[in-house]
Formats: sequence, C-alpha cells, structure tokens
Amino acid sequence: MNSDKLKKILEQLASHEVSVDDVYDQLRQISVEDLEYAKLDHQRHLRCGMPEVIYCPNKTTPQITEIFSRLAAKGENVLATRTTEAVYASVVKAVPNCQFDHDANAIFLKQTNMNTRDNNHYVAVVTARTSDIPVAKEAVVTITLMHQTVEEIYDVGVAGIERLLSKVDVLQRASAIVAIAGMEGALPSVIGGLVSVPVIAVPTSVGYGANFEGVAPLLTMLNSCAAGVSVVNIDNGFSAGYIAATIARQCVHGK
Amino acid sequence: MNSDKLKKILEQLASHEVSVDDVYDQLRQISVEDLEYAKLDHQRHLRCGMPEVIYCPNKTTPQITEIFSRLAAKGENVLATRTTEAVYASVVKAVPNCQFDHDANAIFLKQTNMNTRDNNHYVAVVTARTSDIPVAKEAVVTITLMHQTVEEIYDVGVAGIERLLSKVDVLQRASAIVAIAGMEGALPSVIGGLVSVPVIAVPTSVGYGANFEGVAPLLTMLNSCAAGVSVVNIDNGFSAGYIAATIARQCVHGK
Amino acid sequence: MNSDKLKKILEQLASHEVSVDDVYDQLRQISVEDLEYAKLDHQRHLRCGMPEVIYCPNKTTPQITEIFSRLAAKGENVLATRTTEAVYASVVKAVPNCQFDHDANAIFLKQTNMNTRDNNHYVAVVTARTSDIPVAKEAVVTITLMHQTVEEIYDVGVAGIERLLSKVDVLQRASAIVAIAGMEGALPSVIGGLVSVPVIAVPTSVGYGANFEGVAPLLTMLNSCAAGVSVVNIDNGFSAGYIAATIARQCVHGK
Amino acid sequence: MNSDKLKKILEQLASHEVSVDDVYDQLRQISVEDLEYAKLDHQRHLRCGMPEVIYCPNKTTPQITEIFSRLAAKGENVLATRTTEAVYASVVKAVPNCQFDHDANAIFLKQTNMNTRDNNHYVAVVTARTSDIPVAKEAVVTITLMHQTVEEIYDVGVAGIERLLSKVDVLQRASAIVAIAGMEGALPSVIGGLVSVPVIAVPTSVGYGANFEGVAPLLTMLNSCAAGVSVVNIDNGFSAGYIAATIARQCVHGK
Amino acid sequence: MNSDKLKKILEQLASHEVSVDDVYDQLRQISVEDLEYAKLDHQRHLRCGMPEVIYCPNKTTPQITEIFSRLAAKGENVLATRTTEAVYASVVKAVPNCQFDHDANAIFLKQTNMNTRDNNHYVAVVTARTSDIPVAKEAVVTITLMHQTVEEIYDVGVAGIERLLSKVDVLQRASAIVAIAGMEGALPSVIGGLVSVPVIAVPTSVGYGANFEGVAPLLTMLNSCAAGVSVVNIDNGFSAGYIAATIARQCVHGK
Amino acid sequence: MNSDKLKKILEQLASHEVSVDDVYDQLRQISVEDLEYAKLDHQRHLRCGMPEVIYCPNKTTPQITEIFSRLAAKGENVLATRTTEAVYASVVKAVPNCQFDHDANAIFLKQTNMNTRDNNHYVAVVTARTSDIPVAKEAVVTITLMHQTVEEIYDVGVAGIERLLSKVDVLQRASAIVAIAGMEGALPSVIGGLVSVPVIAVPTSVGYGANFEGVAPLLTMLNSCAAGVSVVNIDNGFSAGYIAATIARQCVHGK
Amino acid sequence: MNSDKLKKILEQLASHEVSVDDVYDQLRQISVEDLEYAKLDHQRHLRCGMPEVIYCPNKTTPQITEIFSRLAAKGENVLATRTTEAVYASVVKAVPNCQFDHDANAIFLKQTNMNTRDNNHYVAVVTARTSDIPVAKEAVVTITLMHQTVEEIYDVGVAGIERLLSKVDVLQRASAIVAIAGMEGALPSVIGGLVSVPVIAVPTSVGYGANFEGVAPLLTMLNSCAAGVSVVNIDNGFSAGYIAATIARQCVHGK
Amino acid sequence: MNSDKLKKILEQLASHEVSVDDVYDQLRQISVEDLEYAKLDHQRHLRCGMPEVIYCPNKTTPQITEIFSRLAAKGENVLATRTTEAVYASVVKAVPNCQFDHDANAIFLKQTNMNTRDNNHYVAVVTARTSDIPVAKEAVVTITLMHQTVEEIYDVGVAGIERLLSKVDVLQRASAIVAIAGMEGALPSVIGGLVSVPVIAVPTSVGYGANFEGVAPLLTMLNSCAAGVSVVNIDNGFSAGYIAATIARQCVHGK
Repeated sequence: MNSDKLKKILEQLASHEVSVDDVYDQLRQISVEDLEYAKLDHQRHLRCGMPEVIYCPNKTTPQITEIFSRLAAKGENVLATRTTEAVYASVVKAVPNCQFDHDANAIFLKQTNMNTRDNNHYVAVVTARTSDIPVAKEAVVTITLMHQTVEEIYDVGVAGIERLLSKVDVLQRASAIVAIAGMEGALPSVIGGLVSVPVIAVPTSVGYGANFEGVAPLLTMLNSCAAGVSVVNIDNGFSAGYIAATIARQCVHGK
Repeated sequence: MNSDKLKKILEQLASHEVSVDDVYDQLRQISVEDLEYAKLDHQRHLRCGMPEVIYCPNKTTPQITEIFSRLAAKGENVLATRTTEAVYASVVKAVPNCQFDHDANAIFLKQTNMNTRDNNHYVAVVTARTSDIPVAKEAVVTITLMHQTVEEIYDVGVAGIERLLSKVDVLQRASAIVAIAGMEGALPSVIGGLVSVPVIAVPTSVGYGANFEGVAPLLTMLNSCAAGVSVVNIDNGFSAGYIAATIARQCVHGK
Repeated sequence: MNSDKLKKILEQLASHEVSVDDVYDQLRQISVEDLEYAKLDHQRHLRCGMPEVIYCPNKTTPQITEIFSRLAAKGENVLATRTTEAVYASVVKAVPNCQFDHDANAIFLKQTNMNTRDNNHYVAVVTARTSDIPVAKEAVVTITLMHQTVEEIYDVGVAGIERLLSKVDVLQRASAIVAIAGMEGALPSVIGGLVSVPVIAVPTSVGYGANFEGVAPLLTMLNSCAAGVSVVNIDNGFSAGYIAATIARQCVHGK
Repeated sequence: MNSDKLKKILEQLASHEVSVDDVYDQLRQISVEDLEYAKLDHQRHLRCGMPEVIYCPNKTTPQITEIFSRLAAKGENVLATRTTEAVYASVVKAVPNCQFDHDANAIFLKQTNMNTRDNNHYVAVVTARTSDIPVAKEAVVTITLMHQTVEEIYDVGVAGIERLLSKVDVLQRASAIVAIAGMEGALPSVIGGLVSVPVIAVPTSVGYGANFEGVAPLLTMLNSCAAGVSVVNIDNGFSAGYIAATIARQCVHGK
Repeated sequence: MNSDKLKKILEQLASHEVSVDDVYDQLRQISVEDLEYAKLDHQRHLRCGMPEVIYCPNKTTPQITEIFSRLAAKGENVLATRTTEAVYASVVKAVPNCQFDHDANAIFLKQTNMNTRDNNHYVAVVTARTSDIPVAKEAVVTITLMHQTVEEIYDVGVAGIERLLSKVDVLQRASAIVAIAGMEGALPSVIGGLVSVPVIAVPTSVGYGANFEGVAPLLTMLNSCAAGVSVVNIDNGFSAGYIAATIARQCVHGK
Repeated sequence: MNSDKLKKILEQLASHEVSVDDVYDQLRQISVEDLEYAKLDHQRHLRCGMPEVIYCPNKTTPQITEIFSRLAAKGENVLATRTTEAVYASVVKAVPNCQFDHDANAIFLKQTNMNTRDNNHYVAVVTARTSDIPVAKEAVVTITLMHQTVEEIYDVGVAGIERLLSKVDVLQRASAIVAIAGMEGALPSVIGGLVSVPVIAVPTSVGYGANFEGVAPLLTMLNSCAAGVSVVNIDNGFSAGYIAATIARQCVHGK
Repeated sequence: MNSDKLKKILEQLASHEVSVDDVYDQLRQISVEDLEYAKLDHQRHLRCGMPEVIYCPNKTTPQITEIFSRLAAKGENVLATRTTEAVYASVVKAVPNCQFDHDANAIFLKQTNMNTRDNNHYVAVVTARTSDIPVAKEAVVTITLMHQTVEEIYDVGVAGIERLLSKVDVLQRASAIVAIAGMEGALPSVIGGLVSVPVIAVPTSVGYGANFEGVAPLLTMLNSCAAGVSVVNIDNGFSAGYIAATIARQCVHGK
Repeated sequence: MNSDKLKKILEQLASHEVSVDDVYDQLRQISVEDLEYAKLDHQRHLRCGMPEVIYCPNKTTPQITEIFSRLAAKGENVLATRTTEAVYASVVKAVPNCQFDHDANAIFLKQTNMNTRDNNHYVAVVTARTSDIPVAKEAVVTITLMHQTVEEIYDVGVAGIERLLSKVDVLQRASAIVAIAGMEGALPSVIGGLVSVPVIAVPTSVGYGANFEGVAPLLTMLNSCAAGVSVVNIDNGFSAGYIAATIARQCVHGK
C-alpha cells in the first residue's frame, strides 16, 4: 500500500465514502512489504556513504555489467569484488568512470564527495606477509569508498617481531585495525595485545598442507588470547574493511 | 633500566664522571624489557577504563583469590569470568566489595566512577533464545565495567521473526550490537541486514547433534551474507562485550 | 497499536476530530510489532492442532514447570521433550492432567479432541534397532498430539533385510514415513526405494568409534540414493514427527 | 518363475502328472527374483506419474543417450539432471521431443498429460540469492514433470528480511516449500517460523572459505530452530523437488 | 504361508477342491515375509557354528538377561559384548552355564562341540600395546566360540620392531591375522608387509590429543601401504574376530 | 653374508684355519640385511602367485615403463594400476605381451599358468551403481592375476533392493565378496546380512556434496551393523581384490 | 640364541663333534629375535642415560607399581607420567626412593649420577600461560632425568609481547627450546623468529570452543612461519622434553 | 636512532650543549625499531651460515628474481623453494651462479665456504617411497646450504621392513634424522624405536582417499609411540632440513 493509496482511503473515510469498519479491515490487510519498504528507506538513510557492493563469483560478465550500471545510476559509490580485468573491460564500456584495482581485483566507482575524510581518524590495514596483500587491498578499496582514511602496513608477520614493533605507534592511534594473516595466523593476537581498539582479523588461504586453505589461521584468530579480536571469513577483506570503516565513521561523525 | 638509573648515568656524563663511549655502550645494552615497560605504562594509559580480567577455568580457588586481590589493589575494575559462587565465597573474604553475577557466573569489582556513562550511546546485547542468556550476561557485565551503557534484548530468534522486527529501532540506534545465538546461529545475519553498525556475533554451544557444540552457529556466522558481522569464539561473551565497548567508547569520547 | 486504538483513531477521523494528515502520520508510525502480532494471530489459526513444545535441556525444573503451566492455560496440547521423570514430578503438581512417556522421556498434555483422527491415513515410524526406540517414541508422541495416527515398526535394520521386506505393505500405504537409524544408517535408503511417499530420516547417536555420535548415519542419509529421503538433526525425533504429521494432516483435511 | 510356468505346474498337479510333494518342492525353490519382479510391478503402479530420472555425472554421452531413449520408450516422463547442452545435442537426435532447461542444466521429456494439475495446490520454491537459482530450477523441472504446480520466489535472503516478509502469504498457502540457500543458509529457519507446512531445505555450494562448499549452510539447516524443516544433500534440487511434489500430490489426489 | 498351509492348498488342487486359477491367485499373494523366512532358515544353516551375539550398550540388565536366555534356548553359542560383571551376575542366574571374560568384558555360553577345531589352522591376534588387550580379548572369545584356534601375540608395537620380528613365523603360518593398535596404528602395515594372508586391522581408542579417540590409527590403517589390510570400526574386536574366523573356517572345512 | 661365505667360514673353523673366537666375532657382525634377505626369499615363496604391482600416480611414463619391464623379467604376473592408455602405449613397446584394461585403467601381464583356477570357488565383485564399475574392474583384474575366479554383479544398489535379492544365491556361495558403493554406501551392510563369508567393502568417491569424495560411504561401511564387513581405502579396488583373492586361494589350496 | 650357546656350537664344530652342515643349518635357523636382542643391547648402550618411561593412563595401580619396580631394578632412572598421588602412594611402598612431582603429575626415580650436567648448555622450557605449566613440568622432569639442565620461563604469551622480549637472551643461548601454548598457540612462531636453535612446540588442550581441545594451537604450530619449529602431540610434554634433551646432550658430549 | 646520532647526542650532553633532561626525554623516545635493529644484527651473527630463503608460491617470476638478486647481494647462500625451471630461467639471468635442483624444484646459490663440513656428523634423510623423494630433496638442498653433510636413504617403507633394518647402522650414527612418508606415514615411528637421536617427521601428500592429502600420515606421526619424533607441516622438507641442520651444527661446532 503506497502513500497515495493510504491517503486516498483516509480521505474517503473523512468524506464518509467508506465506513470505519471498511478502513479498519483494509488496514489489517496492509502487507508487511509496504511497511518494510518504508523501513528500508529509513535504513538507506542510515547507510548513507556505504557503497553498493557486487560479489562477482558465480555471476556472468553481462550480469555484473548490468548490475553495476543499475547501481551506478543511483548516484552512490559502487564496488564489485573478486572480479577480473576482463570483466572490467566490459563494465567500463557501460560505466566509463569506473576504475579497476589490480591488487584487489575489484572494480569501483567513486561518485560521492571524498572531502569529508578526517585524516586524524584512520583504519590501519596490516598484513603478515606480502602474499596477503590482495586481501588487504580489498579492505582498502572498501574503506576508501566509505570515506575513511587508511594506513597500510604490510609484511610484518610475527616470525620477525621487530618489524611489527616498529609500527606500534601507528597501530595504537588507529580507530580500528584490520589484521590479515595466512599460514599460522598469529598476527592479530600480537596486535591485540598492543592496542586498545577493535582488531578485525582476516584469515587468508595463503599456506599449504595443514593450513587447510585458511582453516588454521581462522582457528588461531578465533582462539586469540587478546580480548579485542573478532574474525571474518577466510579471505574476506571486504567485510573486514566494511566493519572497520563503520567504526571509524562513528569516531569521526558519530553515527 | 629505570628512569632513576638512566638519569643518574646521564648526569655522570654531564659531570664527566664517565665518558661518552661508556654511556654509549651502556645504552646499547638497554634491554628490551626496560623499554617495553615504558611502553607498557603508555599502553596502560590507553587502556584506562578497561577492567583487569581473570579467566578462571584451570585455576584453583586460592589462585583466583590471590590474583583478584592483587588486581583489586591497583584500583581498577576487576572481572573474573567462568567461575562459581563457591569461588566467590573465597574471593569476597579477601575483597569485600566484590560482587557475584549469577547469570554471568562472574565475580566483579567496580572501583571506577561510572558516572561517565553516556546513555545516548549504548551497546545492544541480543540473544536468540533464553538459553543463550548466560553468555549475554558475561558480555553485559564486561560492557558495564567498561563504563558503557547496555540494552538487553533476549529471546528474539529467527524462527519467530516478528519478535526481532519489533526491536528494529533499538537495534538501529545502537553504537554496536552483540548478537548471540546457538542452534543454527542465524540471528546475526538477520540483524546485520537491518542495521549499519558493527555486529559482533557470538556462537553458543546451545544445541545437540550436528550442532557440534557450537561449530554449526560459528560457521553460520562466519558465512554471514550481511557485511557488518564479525565473530568471536564459541560462548565468548567477554570478548564480544569488550569489543563492543571499545567501539561505543570511541563514539562517546573518541579514543 | 491494538485493534481498539486503531478503530478509535479511524472513528476520530470519521468524526473529523483529527485530520487525514494526522492519521496518515500516525499510521506511518505503526510499529512492525503491532502488525506482526496480527500476523501471528493469523498464523496461529494455521497452526491449529499443533502442540506447544518445550525443549527442556538447559532449562531448570522450575522454568519448565512454569512454561508448561502457562502453555497449558492456552487450551492447546503441550509437549515437553528430553526431560526426566523427576521434572515430571514437579510439572504434574502444577498441571495434574499431564502425562509422562517413559520411552520418549517426554511430558505431554492432551487437551484437544482426538476424535478427528483418520485411521486410513497414518504415519509409519520405523527403527533399525531396538536402541533407536526412544527417538521413535519422541516422534510418536508428537504425531499423536497433532491428531494423526501412527504405525510403529521397530528393529527392522538392513542387516536382516527380510524383517523389513515383510512390512512393505504397511510402509507403502503410509502418508509419510519416519525412518530412524544409528550405526551405519542405511534403513531410510532401502525404505526410500520401496515407497513413493516422503521419508523423513532421523540419524541417531547409537554407535561408537567412527560413528562419531551420529555423524556417520547423518551422512549416509544425506547421500541416500533414494530420491524421497530428507533428513533432520541427530536424535531429533520431534522434528521428524512434526513434519510427518503436517504431511499426513494435509492428506486428511487438506491444509 | 513366470506366470505361464507357474500355471503349467499347477495344471500338471491338477492333472496328476506331478505329485503334491514335487510341486511343493518346486515352489520352495521359487527365487526371490521372480516374486520381487511382481513386487516391482506393484510398486511401479504406486509410482505412476513419477518421472524416470538419470543422474548424469560419471556417465558418457552415449550412455546417457541410450538410457534416455530406453526410458522414453516406456511412455513416462524422463528427466536427466546435471548435464550439458552438448549432451542434449546427442539425446535430442534420439528422442526428438525432449527439451533442455538451460537454468537447471537438465534434459526432460514430457509424455504424460499435464492437465491433472491443480493450481490451488502448489509447491513454493524459494532461494536466498540469485546464484542459488540453478539448484532451484532443478527442483522446478522435477516438480513440473510430476504434474504439480510451482511458485518461484528468488533472491529473498535473510540479510534483507523485508523481501522475504513481502512473500509471506504465498509461502503460507503452499502445500510444501523448497527453501534453497548457500552462504550461511539461514533462509529455511526463517521460513519455517512463518509457515505450518513442510519446508525441504537445500544447502548450496555457493560461498567460499569457511563455507566449506556447502557444509556451513548444511549444518545451519540441520540445526534449524524451526520444527518443520528437513534437509537434503548439498545442491540436491532434484530430491527436494521430488519430495515436495509427493507431498503436494497427496494434497491434491490423496495417494 | 507356512509349509503346512502350502501343502494343504496343493492337496486341495490335486483333489480338485480348488481350481488352478484359485491356487495361482493365492500363490501370487505369497507375501515376501513367508518366503524370506524360508530363506532365513536356509541362511541359518549356512551360519551353523556362528554364535548368537548381543551388543550390550544401550540395553538394560533385564533386557540383556532376557535376550541371552532366549538365545541360549536355541542351543547355539551365545556372546554378549561390552558388558560388565554386574550384568553377568544377573545373566548367570538365568543361564547358569554362562561365563564371564574379565579381559574382554564379555559374557559367553559354549553349547556346541569344540572338538572340531583344527590346530594346524589358526587366527593370530596381535596387539601393539598392553592397553590394546581388551579389544584383542573380544576378538579371541569370538573366534573361540566360532570353533577356531587362536594364537595371541601382545605388546609387539612398531617402536620396538625386534619384538614383532621375533614372531614372524607364527604370523606367516596363520590363516588370518587380527592386528590391533591404538596410538599411531602402524602395526598392521608392518605385519601386512611380512605375510601373505588377510590382515584385519582394528584401530583402538588408546591415545590422546591428536589421536582423536581412534581416528588417527583408523586413518593409518585405511592408508596402509601393504595390500592385504582391511579395517573395521574403532575398538571393534568382535567384528575382526568374526571375519578372521570365517576365513579360518574356510581353510579348515571349506565353506 | 650369503650361504657360500657362511659355509666357507665354518669350514675354515672345522679345519682350524680360524679360531672359535674369530668366527664368533664374525657371526655377531652378521648384518640384519643378510638374514632378512633370507627371510625375504622365504616370504617370496609364500607369495607365489601374487602379481607384482605398480601404483602409477606420481610416476612418469618412463618410470612406469622401466619398472614394468624389470618386474616382467622376473616371470611373474605384473599389474600397473590407475594408469592411462597413453602410458600403455609406452609400456607395450617394452613388454609386447602386456594388455590394457580400459574399464580398470590398468596395464597387466599374464605370465603364469591360469589353469589352476577352481571355478567352484570364486570371489563375487558387486557394485551399487554403474558408476562404481571402474573400481570393480580394478578388483577383477587383480583377482584374475592371482589365479582366482570372479563373478561380477553390477548395479544392485539398495534403493532397488529387489535387484540385489535376486542375486542372493550367487553371493552366498562365494568364498569372499568385494562390495563396492559410493553415494551412501549401504550395499555392504545389506550383503553382510545375507551371507556368512567375509565382505570386503570399498567406498567409492562417486557422489557429491556431503559425500565428501567418499568419506560418507567410508563411514557407513565402518559402522556396518553386519558383522562380516571390513573396509579398505576409498576407490581401492586393488586391495579389496587382493584380500578377497588371498581368502579364495586358501579355500582352494589351503595356504 | 645367546652368546654362550653360539660359542658352544662353534666349539663343537672346532672339535668336530658336529659337522659343518649341521652348524650351517642351525645358523640358518637363528631367529631374528636372537639377533635383534643383540641389536637391542647395542641400542641400549646408545640409550645410556635415557630414563625408563611408563605412560600410566589405561594402567591399574598394581600394574604401574609392578612395572616401576621392575624397571627400577635395572639401575636406570625411571619416569611414570600422567599419574596421581594415589598411585604414588602405592609405588613408593615398593620403591622407597621414588619421588612425586605434583606439578607434572609424575613419579620419578633418580638412580644415575647427575653430576655430568653442563650448565653452559641448557634447554629452555617456555609457556604462554600459567595454565600450561603442568605440561611444562612434565618436560622439565624428563629433561632433568636425562642429565640436562633446564631454564624455565612461564607466562610469556604473545598477547603481552614485552614479557617474551625481555627473555630473548635466555632463549637465544639455549641448546633447544620447548615452547608450550594452548589457546591460539602463537608462542612458538614468535620464538622461532628470535632464535637459531630448534624449537619443539607443544600444543596444549587449554582453551574452549573452537580450540577443539588443542587442535587450534596444533594447527597454528604446524603452520608456523618460522623455520625452526617442529611439533609433538597435544599436551605431550614428555616427548618434547625427551627430544630437547637429546639435542642438548649432543651439544655437551657429542653422541 | 642510529649509532652516529646517539653518539652525537651524548657528546652534546658531555659538552653541555643540551641538558640531562633533554637527553633523557629524547632517549625515552627511542623507538623500538632502532633497538630492535640492533638486536637483529646480533641475531644475524647467530644465524651465520643460514641460507636466505624465498618461499615461491604466490609470488610472480619478477618478484622472485628481484628478491633472489637482493639476497644474493648480501653474500649469503640463497634458497628459493617450490619453484620451477621456468622461474630459474629468469633468476639465472640476474644471478648467473645460481643452480636449479630438478628433484627439489629449488633454485639455490652457494656463496659460502663449504669446507667446514664435518663428515663424521651427518643428517640422515629417509623416505618411505620413491614418490616422497621430491620432499626429501628439498631437505637435502637446505641441509647442504647450511654446511652440513647428508646421507640419503630412499624407498625403505615399513611394508618391506627388511629394507629399513638393513640401514640401521647408518641411522643410529646420524646426528638427526629427517623421516619422510606419505600413505600411512608409519616410517618415523619405526625409526624412532631404532635410534636415540631426534627424528624430524615430514608427512607428504602422497596418497588418495582417506589420506586426505597428507592428514593421515600427519596424524600418524603426531601420535608416534616412539618418544623422539617431532613433526613439521605436510610436504615441508625445507623446515625439516633446517631443523636437522641446526642440530647437526651444534654437534659439530657447538652453537
């Protein structure tokens, strides 16, 4: 039941064209859908600044291109993750301003004003090894599209603890930290012991044998002896970036 | 090397009692420990307002009592989790002001001024079922000891979705949400789709058979199709509360 | 917003005490909760004949007693599963007409007229071994409380296939079959090949070693080479009985 | 022992060509095979309206073509699942009336009169995401070949709960629901809480990392807190459709 | 249809009291059950010498006592596995000749003539450690009740390979070998390389940590690089003994 | 130390060319290797009739060709498993009499007299589905090379139990049965209940989803409720055939 | 064949009491056992200084007491692990000089001269948390009984990295390090990056939920990104201590 | 803060250009990084003789070439593992003296004097099967680059125990043993029972079915009943070689 229809019914009641009981019965029939779309609008307001996101695996190039174009038309930032340059070649024809991030394997479109960023508040994105960087870059592009600032710190795994310790100050001043590690996945635990802000841990599928494609670092992170560590799915740089950005945003603007 | 000793050496150099080379050599020998304790002090400052925490399993009653007393003497709030009323009977003799939370199975001591709480910013702690409440209460006592406000919403599991939907407004206004569920663990996904703040998901060991003592809801939460959901270990109400409180605190005070 | 309040507002509009815009604004504010309770009522109608169910593990005897009493007061059948005779001793004081099923470890209360049962339509509840009978009995008591007829066939496991084959006729005439097996769990596959009605398979935790407390028969049933087999959680006699009864009910009455 | 042979023996006894003892001994030797084929005929009668089904993986194109042709000759509907258009190119030469469903990757042949369908009774086939549609289509083609009506509802996953809620009425009026979801697999639990008909849940292998190729949604569904949910193997749209159709058929015709 | 009834019908036909068609129709109705019981009798003949077996877990003492008594009345050997001396105290009152094996935790009754044993053919039962002996003894009592001879070789695990090698001759002359090991479970592989007779491997739950209650030796045995090794369930001494005895029996008597 | 050398030393002692102490010292130095090769010879005698076997994965075509040629030169039967026709093209150039089995993907060379086979004793090789036949054929070629007779029974899975029952007699007269099944793997349990000879169960990787590439039927078989069933590794037709042949051989010849 | 018997035979040959052929035949019959016992003696020499060890679980108090007494009579050090003070009460009656280590839950007897220890070479035993100390103490008592020196460093887990860094010098000078950790198990990786000696990692079962009783730290350690880390079974302090001591012993004495 | 800067500050204090308090404040600001690099230098001294190592998976050919060149410039030995001849073709253009090991799939560069090797001390590298040799060769090239001697013993798996026993002397005289096995992985347990030096066990991914790509031998090795066995990750020949070489080095030189 859209607004026009609802108003019309009420006006009919006011003009006594319909009875109170008729209107009452009709209102009892209001589908949840109508109300929920109202809620959805409200929710969209809350979500202002969030990019529209397309998870590309299991989608064809034409599907991705069509969805990207449709979302771009809404005027929001758009992000397509886990895609390829070949897909980008198709999307960019439809949406000429979109860009491809080779490290993150992501297509993105910036349409909102990025000047609202507050460099005093930032998310630190940290990796244990060079090979974890693609996951990190997915987080970075997500955070950036959400108007937040990023500090990138790569290749500071725990087997060379001095590299990590040299970055303690940058870590301690961050609003939130995305800590990414494959292999044994110990990085977030060590970082969690050094800072007092939330650490979002991302296990990666970098490793072999008893790594079980990321299960080993996933378990390591879930069992972290440091209290401030929560975990997202294996290789899920997008969610980690999204969460960190929602935290940083609250620091900057309040909600 | 403590401050006094360092100053004394520098003064000896200033008064030429020792040579530049002597001091240089001594400084090269500064153990990491000395420096790290400096760091630790700095870090403790950052951690102001965090409770001291004792994880009680595998510890004897005398050990818990002794550790609790020692931490209480520092003047900070103290929290002992996963303990029993029998242990409390021992601890309260040593620390008369400490209290026992029967729901959370936690002993706690409030020593810091709670008036700094800002009721406009709060953490929502939500459970799917009544049987998840003990885990929720561990989160609640943690958040409270960290000077943050809590809204508790219990028994709103997804098999009766209308109960959850009736609380949408409270959820959407929270700074962070702790979402706790056993069985199939779907609650955080549904909440994650309704809000734009971080959701810290806690799987519980409530269930049987193919629940595998919490593994089923853990996997559900890690695979959440909602972007803002991160996960902590099974039954880990403390960490979830801790993380949510660090987020809320940033909203209130900045870091 | 309850019915009375809604009617009152509409009457005020009809009597021009309030404007169309005022009512419009108020209706936009209708909380989902109010509407959902309307839905719930509607839903309850659909659910007519379903027992109210209490899953007892993780609940104290006073809690179970209180919930049982409250549900009993609604006039519907009530079922408390996975409980003990000790709990029954408490519940029966509060609800004198309730009964205890020693095989199913269930407390139940029949309050609705059972005469609607149609003996031409029935659910067959079948077990592979004697030790699977407690799970079967949980299904039986559930089906009975849902006003459906049950045929019980026990100890017809596949290692003595002649026992099962001697019951083919009873199986083929059922509206639905609950097939319960531990150990290797092959019974539902064989039954599924003999009938053309839905088979709800229940793996049980009967077994040892590589049975993994019911995982082996669970996997067997999920991989059934017979098309009509679906599976519920390990030892979940209640759900299997519930599903079978909803199928049988449709055969008898339509929905 | 076929009918002719049996009759002949009995006639020989009637004409005293053989003794009672001779016939008795011969009858004791009746092989199970003979009798079982009788049973099979009986069973086939029960199965009237069921399509003949070919599971194509691990079969060569010539094998599939030959089996399809042979089954087509029986006059029943035929369904070949998990195949490709290349296989179809071969089958259609042998069976010109067969069709290919690109979404379901299935070849099918309709030979029975579809006019028996009753549109007042239908199966609802629901997916959480667009990427689950191929599994849904396998269910749809199966149900259709079994002469039942289908309502398709796609992309109503729980992270946008308003989309699902807008379809509650269609769901509640169905005879059975096939609920299909990958990722975290929460959809069937939410549906199960909204309806009072059987929900057949199908986990899909859509997801990554801790999804473990469908294990995560499989566990979610097995642990569903809603009572009416049973589960089939990962990606098994065929079995789910088959089960739902056998339920709907009973609603329409009785068995 | 029992033998008497069948004969009577045939006699009626011979005396023309009934027609050929009547008998034909009646015979077409012979239930599988009747025929299968015939089969069962035949099968029992094949099984001559096999003990009747009761798996005791999940059975009450009265149940075990009753089943044991009933089986004892058939005149065959009876074996009750995984039981206790307390149960024996009850069974022996009902069946005074039964005995209890403290090592195997088994109650057994010998009623058949053991003189048929052929000491030139024997089963070797071998364990890696002393703690595997209870499983071995379950195999030994099973083999003995099946009229076969046993050679017991204990505590010859691979970490002291000289102990095993000193028994090579006894192993090589056996008709079949039951090889039992917990911990890492390597014993059957080494034995399999030394002999040319079937090795039935039994993993035991002796071990800790990454032993996973017998899963580690189970996997070791399934992956054995020696060709003659097959495996039974964890701690399943009974099945291993049963299989070995059926092999030895064929060596002695043919089938 | 070979026989000649040993005799020579003893003769030197007898002729007093060397002292007792010298010989004693020399004998103490006898390496295990010398003695073990003696053992090996003895063992080889026992193994008479066993084919030499090459497991081809992880080996290059030249390696397989070279090993095959070398083994062929010993005069025994040779079997190369899990290989391809391309490898055969290379091997046959070096060993012109070898043959390729397209079903088993095996190269084999028969060099021993097959006339010793006793058709009254045979191994039955049974599969649940057509897609399990390649594994069956690996067993068949192995058994044949070991001079034993095979009866092949395919596509008699438990979802159409009448097909299996029609073969009961052939199964009951076998010396040993190799029972092969993927999917849910229930076939060996049903067979085990029908016969009194050893059943060697082979799980296959035929299946999908919760089949876990053969783990589901593996667990089914390990948990078989029939006593005579032992299990080999997934798809391991060779070992199953080898074991069955060693059993059949004992029936025919004794050891 | 013991030495005396062998010499006697050779002497009989020298004196021509027996023929060369007789001796030759006898020697061919030398059982592997005889020779292996020779090997065993040699091996025992190598093992000089190793304690005799009894793993107590699954053994009764009388068994442990008897074995302990027998080993004590050999004059070597004896160690009984995973036992209790109640068992000690029995053992000490038989072996009055034995001692009980309450932390390690071990009974031990020192009978060899400990003065050979070289304090310049030591094993460092390190734990992440206080609750890992019992496992550490099992390593310590093992190392001590093997005449090696131990440095104990406890409660230096990675969530407070400054505690570990303050001990770097002690770690870097050790001959080998036993690194013990439960929870997420990251300690050995960090230590491995700081030293150039072997690190033997011991996962402990300290933890909960997704720790899976030590599996999480086990996987962490197996995936360590530091090269010098090898792993033993969960809670296996004995093996870790044993390995470290064999390394330290080589540093001190050579082998 | 480098040495020059520190000296300069101290000299300024000595010459009273700055105050004690100024210097004190500056020193309090010394970043951990500065100090840690000092530590690193010290550590590098300890690590003298260790090769620089590049783990190649997930790295591009240009990346590997660049890193290899940079490390080669340091004058140490360099090792690139798990690479290909194609990568070598690129690296050798930049570093002409580097070599490719086809068995180990490793590129290495020897720049240090190998004459320090002591052939009386060696590491034994042992494999169960020929297919484990590539992992062995990775260990061999690592050990060689660390200036230690290697004895290679291949294809001595436990199914032919005589082959292993013939090498006992070589094993017993080694300083450390790398024992490599796939399939069931029993080799290290048997070796561990024959020697008194550390055995580093390497499970390989050679196998199929229930081998689970190396998990089966991994579990076998972790559960070894021999005390001296520790384990590294599946196929991790490098770490095993590294650990063994650090042990052998201590035997030769002390640390």
